[in-house]
Amino acid sequence: MSDCIIAPSILSANFAKLGEEVDNVLAAGADWVHFDVMDNHYVPNLTIGPMVCQALRRHGVTAPIDVHLMVQPVDRIVPDFAEAGASVISFHPEASSHVHRTIQLIKSHGCQAGLVLNPATPVDVLDWVLEDLDLVLLMSVNPGFGGQAFIPSALDKLRAVRRKIDAAGKAVRLEIDGGVKADNIGEIAAAGADTFVAGSAIFNAADYADVIARMRQAVAAAR
Amino acid sequence: MSDCIIAPSILSANFAKLGEEVDNVLAAGADWVHFDVMDNHYVPNLTIGPMVCQALRRHGVTAPIDVHLMVQPVDRIVPDFAEAGASVISFHPEASSHVHRTIQLIKSHGCQAGLVLNPATPVDVLDWVLEDLDLVLLMSVNPGFGGQAFIPSALDKLRAVRRKIDAAGKAVRLEIDGGVKADNIGEIAAAGADTFVAGSAIFNAADYADVIARMRQAVAAAR
Amino acid sequence: MSDCIIAPSILSANFAKLGEEVDNVLAAGADWVHFDVMDNHYVPNLTIGPMVCQALRRHGVTAPIDVHLMVQPVDRIVPDFAEAGASVISFHPEASSHVHRTIQLIKSHGCQAGLVLNPATPVDVLDWVLEDLDLVLLMSVNPGFGGQAFIPSALDKLRAVRRKIDAAGKAVRLEIDGGVKADNIGEIAAAGADTFVAGSAIFNAADYADVIARMRQAVAAAR
Amino acid sequence: MSDCIIAPSILSANFAKLGEEVDNVLAAGADWVHFDVMDNHYVPNLTIGPMVCQALRRHGVTAPIDVHLMVQPVDRIVPDFAEAGASVISFHPEASSHVHRTIQLIKSHGCQAGLVLNPATPVDVLDWVLEDLDLVLLMSVNPGFGGQAFIPSALDKLRAVRRKIDAAGKAVRLEIDGGVKADNIGEIAAAGADTFVAGSAIFNAADYADVIARMRQAVAAAR
Amino acid sequence: MSDCIIAPSILSANFAKLGEEVDNVLAAGADWVHFDVMDNHYVPNLTIGPMVCQALRRHGVTAPIDVHLMVQPVDRIVPDFAEAGASVISFHPEASSHVHRTIQLIKSHGCQAGLVLNPATPVDVLDWVLEDLDLVLLMSVNPGFGGQAFIPSALDKLRAVRRKIDAAGKAVRLEIDGGVKADNIGEIAAAGADTFVAGSAIFNAADYADVIARMRQAVAAAR
Amino acid sequence: MSDCIIAPSILSANFAKLGEEVDNVLAAGADWVHFDVMDNHYVPNLTIGPMVCQALRRHGVTAPIDVHLMVQPVDRIVPDFAEAGASVISFHPEASSHVHRTIQLIKSHGCQAGLVLNPATPVDVLDWVLEDLDLVLLMSVNPGFGGQAFIPSALDKLRAVRRKIDAAGKAVRLEIDGGVKADNIGEIAAAGADTFVAGSAIFNAADYADVIARMRQAVAAAR
Repeated sequence: MSDCIIAPSILSANFAKLGEEVDNVLAAGADWVHFDVMDNHYVPNLTIGPMVCQALRRHGVTAPIDVHLMVQPVDRIVPDFAEAGASVISFHPEASSHVHRTIQLIKSHGCQAGLVLNPATPVDVLDWVLEDLDLVLLMSVNPGFGGQAFIPSALDKLRAVRRKIDAAGKAVRLEIDGGVKADNIGEIAAAGADTFVAGSAIFNAADYADVIARMRQAVAAAR
Repeated sequence: MSDCIIAPSILSANFAKLGEEVDNVLAAGADWVHFDVMDNHYVPNLTIGPMVCQALRRHGVTAPIDVHLMVQPVDRIVPDFAEAGASVISFHPEASSHVHRTIQLIKSHGCQAGLVLNPATPVDVLDWVLEDLDLVLLMSVNPGFGGQAFIPSALDKLRAVRRKIDAAGKAVRLEIDGGVKADNIGEIAAAGADTFVAGSAIFNAADYADVIARMRQAVAAAR
Repeated sequence: MSDCIIAPSILSANFAKLGEEVDNVLAAGADWVHFDVMDNHYVPNLTIGPMVCQALRRHGVTAPIDVHLMVQPVDRIVPDFAEAGASVISFHPEASSHVHRTIQLIKSHGCQAGLVLNPATPVDVLDWVLEDLDLVLLMSVNPGFGGQAFIPSALDKLRAVRRKIDAAGKAVRLEIDGGVKADNIGEIAAAGADTFVAGSAIFNAADYADVIARMRQAVAAAR
Repeated sequence: MSDCIIAPSILSANFAKLGEEVDNVLAAGADWVHFDVMDNHYVPNLTIGPMVCQALRRHGVTAPIDVHLMVQPVDRIVPDFAEAGASVISFHPEASSHVHRTIQLIKSHGCQAGLVLNPATPVDVLDWVLEDLDLVLLMSVNPGFGGQAFIPSALDKLRAVRRKIDAAGKAVRLEIDGGVKADNIGEIAAAGADTFVAGSAIFNAADYADVIARMRQAVAAAR
Repeated sequence: MSDCIIAPSILSANFAKLGEEVDNVLAAGADWVHFDVMDNHYVPNLTIGPMVCQALRRHGVTAPIDVHLMVQPVDRIVPDFAEAGASVISFHPEASSHVHRTIQLIKSHGCQAGLVLNPATPVDVLDWVLEDLDLVLLMSVNPGFGGQAFIPSALDKLRAVRRKIDAAGKAVRLEIDGGVKADNIGEIAAAGADTFVAGSAIFNAADYADVIARMRQAVAAAR
Repeated sequence: MSDCIIAPSILSANFAKLGEEVDNVLAAGADWVHFDVMDNHYVPNLTIGPMVCQALRRHGVTAPIDVHLMVQPVDRIVPDFAEAGASVISFHPEASSHVHRTIQLIKSHGCQAGLVLNPATPVDVLDWVLEDLDLVLLMSVNPGFGGQAFIPSALDKLRAVRRKIDAAGKAVRLEIDGGVKADNIGEIAAAGADTFVAGSAIFNAADYADVIARMRQAVAAAR
């Protein structure tokens, strides 16, 4: 399992030319496309849905598309995203009374399944499903709003989840989202993350390849 | 007031190069950009939100953007769309217990306000707000799903609403959305519509200018 | 179209031997089986669902099963009832923001579609869908509670809906539910109803055949 | 039936000494105490509930307390207000799927029942329940917010509802709420209202008795 | 306290002759009647409500009726089931924001109270209420759907809950529901369960008594 | 940090003369004003909102006002209470999917933030937010209802939370609400509480100063 996946969040890309933006960031070395879905209910914002995901696939994007569902309820839209080409689908336990069922639903549609922990969410929500997951996504900001700084306690939480994953002895990716930049990604990696979402840190940079390269170096140096 | 506004729905455009698509359809003679917002609650689909609207404005689109909110509740997202550059904001009376207040909210943010009638919605929802509206949008298919045929009873409904608008003596646009094509737009115009949403009929055509021109001719011939 | 359909509501039957109860009431001359579904949300009671409907079909019931959905939302459960053997599926416009779509959904699953009017519901909810309906069900009590008396204004409402149906010139059944008994069914029929739900009036009677026969006589006499 | 009921809204009174405020306004000639209940769901504000109503009764208030429920759902809180001493309980049809049932519930607890029409609400919601009502309350502003001006179309709406009440031939009060002042109450009365809610127009006045007297004079002059 | 309660789920019985089915399974040695209530909201299915429970009591069933509420919200329907003859009422903590209050409500109506843990629910939901409970129900499949296989991690979860119950030193039954059969009930009992729900494993068997006897033997052998 | 804050709940005061009641209880030695907000959704009662809080400030109350929000959702009303003069705002984690965000929202409006634990709520909801909090409020009765006795297990829970606060090494107040009286406040203080809500125990006493003094003595004796 790769120990450094860089997943630029297209929420910071230019939606008027999204195909080109994604092509460029992948050419610059990004691994995954991070796709943030908000429904104006689970979070107070509405972003992009399955048709935009499908358009990226039709445009020729072959990299994994990593869909983060900030929606409630969750289950109805899962098949739509699977059909639209999603690779990983992650959701919030607060948004589903049937967390195990939703994980099975995602996997039954051929996608990998992730669970997302909000900054305040206790880690014991992982206790009985960690072995069914492909990915745990820790939020280091509150979902639904841009421009927030990395919440420092997320480092301790990364360590706590890393211990659980290692104890389970199963290959589960540990992803972090919120305020990740080239200058803090090293300590984030040291705390246990192996998959890194970054939005403005990449798309607002003059040179995508340069910032992605610096991120990888910082991660490598932290190991 | 122009008697023929053509408003292509970008839900049928290529989301990977939306700026270019919108540029092309406007260059081909379209008047407005029709922008369909679904939240996976009022309708079982999730499409695009304020950030995509804003990207079009930043891309340089100056034509009116005609936002159709298929969301519930309505009020929270209205300021977001106004700030993102919407020109007209329409909503469903089923989605707001305070229809008059929502109209005032839209207008207080500098946008024109529209009310949308589903195929089964009685026209008396217009009784006490018609004079506050800039636009009435009649759905001739059920919102939230693509590929539906024009519901024939919408012609009678257009006539009924046209009578109300004429009686009110105020300039209120009468828009139609659903299954509009070059070969039925004439009878739709004859029934009273003056603003025409078309999605696949335009974006699936080989030549946008040709289909828009034929639509205009059919409307002119129907008057 | 038969001018007198008697539809006993099995909510008043003995649920411990429902197959036998239904067999008996059909043998006694009933035409349809009326099946009241409550979900503890649209009304404050929870009754019976698709599995009970299916059990009646497997038991051998071949008479039409007339399902009255007192549930909100409506659409998710429609296919379940169609698959379980429902013949007619009726729902409340208050419970669906997309009344036309729900009607189409019911018909697309091979069932007949009905719309139910609560005692206070204005009749203009029928304006744009009457020609798509197979049945209109007027409530002459409030749904969700037993033991209520027939609301007198329902007679005027029957006359109002009867005029609409006759004007539409289409075969749409006009059903009444609530407080119907042998001694008032005549004036109810005279007001325009042709399909009659009765619960305790039939199942609490010593002789089902006798009460059904008296109901038919009263209806015939009222014509 | 009195043709001029003045009902000061205590939402504009001083909540730190509510008993004294109510005593004073009643001594100044007011007829009813208007009590606005908001639940932060039906409207975006939360005001006062049954315990405050009960405190007024225990304080010695014997005038009718006219409770306007801006809450959704409605039914659960009705018995609480009846027990707390409410005289009239009014609610919004948008907030109850079972309008007839809620009216019966209010009356079964010994209170008078009212239905409230928002500025955009069609008047046909009264069609099948007018004879069960004791009061119709027309909103001439949108509920939930203070400081709004009287919406002019409310005058036409008053005339439309007055015609319905007169046609029904039953004593139903016609109340108006929103932007009522001494200088417009005359034309409001002329349009058909007989019961007048006023908040800041009374409680912000230096002399409650003076403003109430001028209101009565204007109403009398308009007849 | 009996160490082996067999509770057949009547969801797998024939609803057309439910009284006879229940009589037969009790005659075949079953201890309790397990009664699954679904409301089409907490789970996507609607089954049977209080009237069916009451019909079983009127039919003469005296065995404990073990009601599993898969409904949200919970509290309104609790008194209905108590009055209809329920013995134990269990609910999901996800479905009530006031778990302690719901437990007290159930007990105040004279029933025993149970809490149900979904496959993903952390066991710490028991921390502050275990001593108030009569029963803990572990789901070894996801509620709301039939035909699922026993989730293996439920064995570890049984052991974890058994430790908590033993530590509390109070007689609390530990029930398991989902995929229980004669050939796995032994290891389930060994993991700590003492009450066993089985649906199709019993009702689809040719000989109820035989399968129940084999279940008891397997449980006894596991101790 | 003071080790004994007495916070009388004004829910037990006379709402007809609330300013005077609050003046009196503060003059009698109370430290804070406890303000219970119920919205008829999170709990089945509706009490008082921001306008009543503001009235107390305008009346001249300068003591801290300690607002306990029993509302769902939480965020919309937070700014209203901050503007109305609240000092501390506490909420329930069950009522917000974004607990960390709500805490930040409260603090961004200049108020102190508290989290409330219902009797059954696990204490691990504090794990990742304790250092962001100013106060933890333990419910020793179920919120929304009066006249309940102190739940004994709250003493153990106080000890568990006290250990977490001490381990965090940050000044976080530990408040208790429900069934607190002069004769049990000693053992409650011994278990770790430092802030005490009392309603009827104070407002139903003949002499507010006497009961508050006895409470303080009992707390002092327990240290």
